[in-house]
Amino acid sequence: MLSKDLPDIESILALNPRVKTHAQIMSTANKKKEKKHWKRNPDRNCDSCVKLENNFDDIKHTTLSERGALREALRCLKCADAPCQKSCPTNLDVKSFITSISNKNYYGAARSILSDNPLGLTCGMVCPTSELCVGGCNLYASEEGPINIGGLQQFATEVFSKMGIAQMRNPELPPANEMPESYHTPIALIGCGPASISCASFLARLGYDNITIFEKQKYTGGLSISEIPQFRLPYEVVQFEIDLMKDLGVKVVCEKGLGIDGMSLSSLKEEGFTAVFIGIGLPQANRAKIFQGLTMDQGFFTSKDFLPMVASASKKGMCQCRSSLPQLRGIVIVLGAGDTAFDCATSALRCGAKRVYVCFRKGFTNIRAVPEEMELAREEQCEFLPFLSPREVIMKNGRVAGLQFCRTEQTEEGDWLEDEDQVVRLKADYIISAFGSMLNEPQVTEAMSPVKLTRWGTPEVNTDTMQTSEPWVFAGGDIAGLANTSVESVNDGKQASWHIHRYIQSLHGQTVDSVPKLPLFYSAIDQVDISVDVCGIKFPNPFGLASAPPTTSTAMIRRAFEQGWGFALTKTFGLDKDLVTNVSPRIVRGTTSGNVYGPGQGSFLNIELISEKTAAYWCESVTELKKDFPNNVSFTCLFLWTLTSPLLRYPVISLFDTSLKMYQCTHRRSIIVPGFATVIVSVISCGADGVTATNTVSGMMGLKADGVPWPSVGKGKRTTYGGVSGNAIRPIALRAVSAIGRAIPGFPILATGGIDSAETGLQFLHAGASVLQVCSAVQNQDFTVIEDYCVANLTYMTLKRSLELKDWDGQSPPTERHQKGKPVPRLEDLDVIARALRYIGAYQELNNMEQVQALIDEEMCINCGKCYMTCNDSGYQAIEFDPETHFPIVNDSCTGCTLCLSVCPIIDCIKMVTRTTSYEPKRGVPISPVC
Amino acid sequence: MLSKDLPDIESILALNPRVKTHAQIMSTANKKKEKKHWKRNPDRNCDSCVKLENNFDDIKHTTLSERGALREALRCLKCADAPCQKSCPTNLDVKSFITSISNKNYYGAARSILSDNPLGLTCGMVCPTSELCVGGCNLYASEEGPINIGGLQQFATEVFSKMGIAQMRNPELPPANEMPESYHTPIALIGCGPASISCASFLARLGYDNITIFEKQKYTGGLSISEIPQFRLPYEVVQFEIDLMKDLGVKVVCEKGLGIDGMSLSSLKEEGFTAVFIGIGLPQANRAKIFQGLTMDQGFFTSKDFLPMVASASKKGMCQCRSSLPQLRGIVIVLGAGDTAFDCATSALRCGAKRVYVCFRKGFTNIRAVPEEMELAREEQCEFLPFLSPREVIMKNGRVAGLQFCRTEQTEEGDWLEDEDQVVRLKADYIISAFGSMLNEPQVTEAMSPVKLTRWGTPEVNTDTMQTSEPWVFAGGDIAGLANTSVESVNDGKQASWHIHRYIQSLHGQTVDSVPKLPLFYSAIDQVDISVDVCGIKFPNPFGLASAPPTTSTAMIRRAFEQGWGFALTKTFGLDKDLVTNVSPRIVRGTTSGNVYGPGQGSFLNIELISEKTAAYWCESVTELKKDFPNNVSFTCLFLWTLTSPLLRYPVISLFDTSLKMYQCTHRRSIIVPGFATVIVSVISCGADGVTATNTVSGMMGLKADGVPWPSVGKGKRTTYGGVSGNAIRPIALRAVSAIGRAIPGFPILATGGIDSAETGLQFLHAGASVLQVCSAVQNQDFTVIEDYCVANLTYMTLKRSLELKDWDGQSPPTERHQKGKPVPRLEDLDVIARALRYIGAYQELNNMEQVQALIDEEMCINCGKCYMTCNDSGYQAIEFDPETHFPIVNDSCTGCTLCLSVCPIIDCIKMVTRTTSYEPKRGVPISPVC
Repeated sequence: MLSKDLPDIESILALNPRVKTHAQIMSTANKKKEKKHWKRNPDRNCDSCVKLENNFDDIKHTTLSERGALREALRCLKCADAPCQKSCPTNLDVKSFITSISNKNYYGAARSILSDNPLGLTCGMVCPTSELCVGGCNLYASEEGPINIGGLQQFATEVFSKMGIAQMRNPELPPANEMPESYHTPIALIGCGPASISCASFLARLGYDNITIFEKQKYTGGLSISEIPQFRLPYEVVQFEIDLMKDLGVKVVCEKGLGIDGMSLSSLKEEGFTAVFIGIGLPQANRAKIFQGLTMDQGFFTSKDFLPMVASASKKGMCQCRSSLPQLRGIVIVLGAGDTAFDCATSALRCGAKRVYVCFRKGFTNIRAVPEEMELAREEQCEFLPFLSPREVIMKNGRVAGLQFCRTEQTEEGDWLEDEDQVVRLKADYIISAFGSMLNEPQVTEAMSPVKLTRWGTPEVNTDTMQTSEPWVFAGGDIAGLANTSVESVNDGKQASWHIHRYIQSLHGQTVDSVPKLPLFYSAIDQVDISVDVCGIKFPNPFGLASAPPTTSTAMIRRAFEQGWGFALTKTFGLDKDLVTNVSPRIVRGTTSGNVYGPGQGSFLNIELISEKTAAYWCESVTELKKDFPNNVSFTCLFLWTLTSPLLRYPVISLFDTSLKMYQCTHRRSIIVPGFATVIVSVISCGADGVTATNTVSGMMGLKADGVPWPSVGKGKRTTYGGVSGNAIRPIALRAVSAIGRAIPGFPILATGGIDSAETGLQFLHAGASVLQVCSAVQNQDFTVIEDYCVANLTYMTLKRSLELKDWDGQSPPTERHQKGKPVPRLEDLDVIARALRYIGAYQELNNMEQVQALIDEEMCINCGKCYMTCNDSGYQAIEFDPETHFPIVNDSCTGCTLCLSVCPIIDCIKMVTRTTSYEPKRGVPISPVC
Repeated sequence: MLSKDLPDIESILALNPRVKTHAQIMSTANKKKEKKHWKRNPDRNCDSCVKLENNFDDIKHTTLSERGALREALRCLKCADAPCQKSCPTNLDVKSFITSISNKNYYGAARSILSDNPLGLTCGMVCPTSELCVGGCNLYASEEGPINIGGLQQFATEVFSKMGIAQMRNPELPPANEMPESYHTPIALIGCGPASISCASFLARLGYDNITIFEKQKYTGGLSISEIPQFRLPYEVVQFEIDLMKDLGVKVVCEKGLGIDGMSLSSLKEEGFTAVFIGIGLPQANRAKIFQGLTMDQGFFTSKDFLPMVASASKKGMCQCRSSLPQLRGIVIVLGAGDTAFDCATSALRCGAKRVYVCFRKGFTNIRAVPEEMELAREEQCEFLPFLSPREVIMKNGRVAGLQFCRTEQTEEGDWLEDEDQVVRLKADYIISAFGSMLNEPQVTEAMSPVKLTRWGTPEVNTDTMQTSEPWVFAGGDIAGLANTSVESVNDGKQASWHIHRYIQSLHGQTVDSVPKLPLFYSAIDQVDISVDVCGIKFPNPFGLASAPPTTSTAMIRRAFEQGWGFALTKTFGLDKDLVTNVSPRIVRGTTSGNVYGPGQGSFLNIELISEKTAAYWCESVTELKKDFPNNVSFTCLFLWTLTSPLLRYPVISLFDTSLKMYQCTHRRSIIVPGFATVIVSVISCGADGVTATNTVSGMMGLKADGVPWPSVGKGKRTTYGGVSGNAIRPIALRAVSAIGRAIPGFPILATGGIDSAETGLQFLHAGASVLQVCSAVQNQDFTVIEDYCVANLTYMTLKRSLELKDWDGQSPPTERHQKGKPVPRLEDLDVIARALRYIGAYQELNNMEQVQALIDEEMCINCGKCYMTCNDSGYQAIEFDPETHFPIVNDSCTGCTLCLSVCPIIDCIKMVTRTTSYEPKRGVPISPVC
């Protein structure tokens, strides 16, 4: 029988889903066994868990792959007055960098992050986000939960770090040798941790070029290096950020610090340093009395003993000496409830501990560490013991053998009591105390003279300026007493940088703007010129607003130009005799991306007419724009019904004040009709100097279940066909633009239709467009997206030039270091426009002898079987599915159709590879006379 | 100046995002204050938290709104051999019900759930899913994390419960009075808890009509009612499921049970019951020796004392007597580490406890409850104390005053020791022990005679059949010793039902199928006839496969018909002279829904040609189909280049073996060209009896960053324009279908283009389609989606008929009870086809005097400000945004354009309401001669 599959089909299709005709049954007893086979999450009593000993792999929970980052970024609402930013100590513009990630503009995201936080990657990895940015996320109000902001921040900055691009000074500053004298004054920063790195970075961005950081250790990075374990914050991350700082000329001198070799504030002053920033942290551990005199040999560590030993043994590159991990065994008690305690606990497991107890004085509800800091310890099955206050170390043969606690209790009034009668004795082979830090070094205290100190021996600082009692001495980070987290130390340094700047300038009689203006992050990328010439007109960048709702008024166009848009087409207007009044509702959400509400609608439909404003309004007000924005390009769109060709009863777009005319090729007439080239030719013969392509596509977006359309106007609930815009029509618009490009090479095209990022814009440029118009993407967000588009465009230009990065697809996947020292490329030099046209042609030109087949990467496969299903019910029954392992196996029947790759949820898990055998179509029945 | 906004624009736009020109600064000290204002997640030391006392509102974490459910369902991969199903004790077809949810077919989802689990709503709310379905989710392999399956299950069944639709018997069974004698035999079930409700439901579905459940309490539902708190499992949920069971005629008798009034297995046998199922649970609490003799008055409860008191006071309807909550105060100690212990802890807070300690013998890593069961107690700040074994109750004035424990320790070998020297004394005003349950009632034990008992006094059961030593006595749930969870009890009952059926049939000499066949869930909805007539041909349902990859071979069409598809168009084929060979790659993922990979691609693009098979193959094999599936409709699509009109060089679709001919109206010629009706007329004049509309839309899906297209063929990387299919083209297809419908009323249309659910299919029917063709949706999943489409279609028909539900949009939002007893409606009676055409017309027919304005619901608003942004940068500056509260306020400038609603992430948060004042367009400058 022809209509039954071959005998082996049953095994191929054994697992292919079928409609159920009966309820299925399996006994509870059997099911208990069966389900174990499919369990993917770790068993709660797992004996076969990953062995942690000496395992310092990156296992951070919030780490995202590109797929995960894109999904998460898409989900972000990009709120107007975003509370994430309001809750970030460094005021990171979170929604902007997430916007860039969702547009695959990872440099743009990193640039935005590093602009406000020079340690953006560190903070992305170690911030207690639930108390910061994430704590304010509006999505807490929905059951989806808040955005993984830390993970996104880490992702973007990591991709950027792989681009190997150096930081450079604000390009608007004069060259270093032309800077005023005051910018050459020597500035010292003490301690090379987060606060100083941040402070020095901003000072260098402001233009100071004689900055030195003194670090007492042999390594730089401070607590990030010495205490935070490699699996929470890799060594390379910190070095990357220090390198970015050094790109700006900041010098770092190791093995020098306050109280070392006679260095003091006074000696620094004598050496000529005009200002000093103290960022030395709190270098000594708080050590309870009961632990006095105990040594590491005896089995006692403070966190300040233990963590640096773990760090130097597990962080490659940190020190030349290759030291080894502390060797632990048996039971380890960790004392404390901050993130350091949990770092000690998880590190102890990696040093050989069999069991770790984290003991703390108060209850879980009073714990200092936030959930994300405890999570790893919880997952790695550390035990938490609340309400225990240590009393006495139990020694045996001169070594730690246990610890005796008394129980703490809270009274109804909230006071804490320690009940000496309730004694808890825990056996232990090691005790690690993580009771916080202090400054307890007389020579350092002395070296800080004459700065006024607090009762803790740390400098008194003005919490607004970070200035100490000595106006030329500033302090930040742990030692300044405000910061509890790395990101707050970074902010202390940032804050201090501005006030150091003010102080130094005041010494030179300069007043500094009262509104702080710290420069953004810049690199060579930002110097690329992306202006374009069309018909002799220069566009500052290829992105403009389409003739649509974002150009409802010239006041809006003015704001758009202020934000950086290159050009704008006014909303089309008619002569007074054609004045219109719109109906409402008239712009509705697209249903083309499924039942998703909110961010990034895949399309819109509108039944909006041309502008309601008079021609006089447009003519007068565009004149104003022209005067105030001479570098931007304003088109006026006049709706005329009286042109010569009946095919051209469509808007005439004229470059205001010139004779240049563009015609809007609408989908209905010009693009879709075959013989399309003749239409374009007739457009030219009418005097057009270019076309815009395409208009929206005529359609009906949807009906409610009772048949009532949306939008529906008035009591009669009537509707009419509207214009579909946005991503849904991008394939149509891309086709139209490339078709014009192929028909009339070089003819100017103002492309529009689903341009929502530089990435999609680039596709239109490749397809032959000259400049790009945007509407739906602004409807989905706001005018600020232009910043992302321009920065991304610059980045594409730069990355393309880099030989090392030529395997990247745009800004996706990473490789080695970027080749420096290339000349600044210009957009047009790069042969972007119309680059793709060489590849596009008639079907007959495609070679059906060059076939491909699917290749599935088993290591990336997540076993969902979507490839198997689609191949079997929409294709060729060429994928088998192992009933035990759920691995899909491609067999010889594969015709390379690519459906499997198209539905696979994992990027690059399926690749299409060249077929090595010749392809024989299955004809079913040999060629014969037709029935 | 015309191009500057009015004076007050600055306050409207104060928060409108702007591109940053400088890094922002704010001191660490100020930021610490500022961020508190924006914090949305609960503070970890919250003094102003929600007061829990006497608060039994539903606060389940996993509960989903429709928005949340749709997003979560969309994210599900619908894996081939889905591990969620493999891990569910009742074998729920999880991916099918999630498919239905994502298609807004909530009845279909509930039907699928209840088919395998008659307590599907209960289980959706109380299952420890991380150890069951969710534990197997393949998305654990991605950083997105697993699907919230419990929440989806709860959502679908809750919506269904609001439809008020009764369960009915398998419609394929003969009427009750025609059933064989054996089905009238009396069956008794003892204890009306999850096991018995499940067992009775399945027995009734099999056709048994004399089933009685005896329940010793005054209320039904068992442990679900008496122990699980209202906020985890509301009373109404359990009653809903019992009502569904009663719909099938199961009788419930309260205040009767084993050992009560002389009831015993023997007495039941004497009364004529042929089979008995024991599902009485374990009614007594395990009570440790140290608690012997303690009473509730003294401050001691077991969970079996405490929880039923909480239940009867907090569950309205559970008992007529309105009892009051146990009044607790001060400190409460809960003993135990199972879910019951956590239920006691969270309930204790609601009864007035100030502080709750949950104490358990082992460590956190050995705890029995799964994370989701502990989570609520954790959030409500109960304190957990591990390693404590209770030793002695401390009494004061005859009341509980505290509890003394000794500490437990685990040896290196894993043995547990209790160290009597390490004593922990906790003050307490109440102690609640939750140490599990047992059967300890001599009269019950006696009543179970002669069933053989285990050493725990419970019946010995065959774990496969749930049969006891007495072949006519079965047991399940807690008493059978296998089930640890409600869902396992349900499965015990399900499993037993089949073996009771086998036992009873064997008594009547009937052998039962060796493959268990338990009937599915049915309701009146499933009896609606959705067949349609087109040109005198009857289609069993309106859904068929388009001429596309899913019909690559007739073997595939055969499988599709087996799954329930109503019709199929073969892949278009040519005469032998036109035989083709495809290129590869040729079918690629759509980029129209953004950077999302995997489930539910919003579009595909293909450059696939017609069938590679010969005409002879198709003719022969369709003949086979025709013979084997006489009720299904098979079209053959022959590609002919030789028709009379040059406009019609397109596939001719003929109903195989008849003279009926359809023409495929392709987008290029017929639909888009104005004067389109003439084309259709010419189609008719060529002898067409109908058309299919539309084809794919010509487009180019995208280019990589280097300008190389995808798909690209061979070394030359060449491509050609392809056909865009799927949701992205639905607006175009809907327009085309409705345009034909309006031009030639009643002309048969086979619609295609983005039909991916019954909901979207219905829109095409409303727009004038006769039947519906599907391709991309099958490519996204598999042939089984037909089940969802048909069931959803039935549901729309039923709900539309219900006057009570007329405010629903399809199956969305719920109201009162469904009106029963309606006649079975037929699709065509319901005036579905072409219902929408009355609303569609020319723009001139819309009334611009009937305007609307936006109204924002402050209670639903999540403060993202997307409405504010889009209104300001893409519209009318008619929304202000409060800088303090982040509430958007619509002002009088609103023109009703509807952009705000279109971008709002929350369903129904913004509504468009009728404008009460007259609408005056802002013309900018008064009408005047044009410049």
